[in-house]
Amino acid sequence: MCDVCGCGDVRRVSIDVHASLLGDNDREAAHLREHFTRGGVLALNVMGSPGAGKTALLEAVARSLEGRLRLSAVSGDLATALDAERLERAGVVSAAITTGSACHLDARMVHDALHDDRLGVAAGECDVFFIENVGNLVCPAIYDLGQAANIVVLSVTEGVDKPLKYPVMFRKADLVVISKVDLLPHLPGVSVEALAENLARVMPSVELIALSATTGQGLAALVAWLERQRARPALIRRV
Amino acid sequence: MCDVCGCGDVRRVSIDVHASLLGDNDREAAHLREHFTRGGVLALNVMGSPGAGKTALLEAVARSLEGRLRLSAVSGDLATALDAERLERAGVVSAAITTGSACHLDARMVHDALHDDRLGVAAGECDVFFIENVGNLVCPAIYDLGQAANIVVLSVTEGVDKPLKYPVMFRKADLVVISKVDLLPHLPGVSVEALAENLARVMPSVELIALSATTGQGLAALVAWLERQRARPALIRRV
Repeated sequence: MCDVCGCGDVRRVSIDVHASLLGDNDREAAHLREHFTRGGVLALNVMGSPGAGKTALLEAVARSLEGRLRLSAVSGDLATALDAERLERAGVVSAAITTGSACHLDARMVHDALHDDRLGVAAGECDVFFIENVGNLVCPAIYDLGQAANIVVLSVTEGVDKPLKYPVMFRKADLVVISKVDLLPHLPGVSVEALAENLARVMPSVELIALSATTGQGLAALVAWLERQRARPALIRRV
Repeated sequence: MCDVCGCGDVRRVSIDVHASLLGDNDREAAHLREHFTRGGVLALNVMGSPGAGKTALLEAVARSLEGRLRLSAVSGDLATALDAERLERAGVVSAAITTGSACHLDARMVHDALHDDRLGVAAGECDVFFIENVGNLVCPAIYDLGQAANIVVLSVTEGVDKPLKYPVMFRKADLVVISKVDLLPHLPGVSVEALAENLARVMPSVELIALSATTGQGLAALVAWLERQRARPALIRRV
């Protein structure tokens, strides 16, 4: 009986298909990972809140590389191909994945997108493949997409408490990019130090880059990080 | 066969329990709605991205009301009770709902929280009950929580394209609060007009308030909106 109103508890459907669906995704992700490894493609899962600056970051990286690496990307959104169009203009061969109502990308969606030969992933004609996930600081974290590493983008405008409130995402991050740092002078109480401190409370080891896609601050460090990832003996990461 | 690599398609688990779970939630939400209606409580589902400024907005409303209305709230987060603590300090009787890994609140979680007598909802000793949802611009939109209306908070720092990319959420909004407008001078290309234009492309009729919790701009309009909602003949909304 419910204490509030004395009503009987409503019976809930509680079929546990979640584990099964995730197991399915893991199998498809392992298959994707084979594609990436065989082709020598560094696949990166780029996650963060809506408006954290994921697309702006990738545009800035592409422009700063000036064609030195072959970049391609898929961009996930519920609707529109706006991000893929922006990336394409910045020199990243891009395809949009429109999810309809889904809050994350899964391995099947990414695998289907690889059928677009322009991306060059299947043929190994791509150096870095960015998987720009749906803007969401929760759900994308638990779907393996065969990536070599996770980049989580966190903008300073979101406040300093986000690592504590969304620990699942940050625990999965190989790199946290603190974005929009050019806005820091207008945000009292927000600092990269305070963010780093909160990240350290949820992540075993924090690797972070403070970046502004507007001023270019941090871009060189991010490109150097990319190069280090490419130089790793295997592009396979523990998941 | 997969064109990319010639592999056979992996069989997917495709049990459709989603509709069933939502049906279950709808029944619990209807029950919650009875609580709210019977108690004369205006229940509002406050949604938006992580860091959109949901808590800051509720704090500002509470301070501006100066005790004229009895306010209570639940705050959903994966971890921590930080938001509930902030609201409590602002004069809102508050309880935290920590979801663990869940990306949204459901009607059962809210109903369970009402067992906290301090909230005063079950006893009708509350005028406005804020349900501050998990920061997420996708999933919370589809879970009815018995609310009379939905407030979606969208910060100017998220950029102008969010209504187009997350239409499901904005279609469900009764009121869109454009937050952090004090930062507009530092965000080239972002304006309330551009946001309104994009909202109009996905919402049948747009009601929006441009607000800054820092300067107080828009607070009076938001309080007036709250009063109009309270004056509606029935607090029941079509879902």
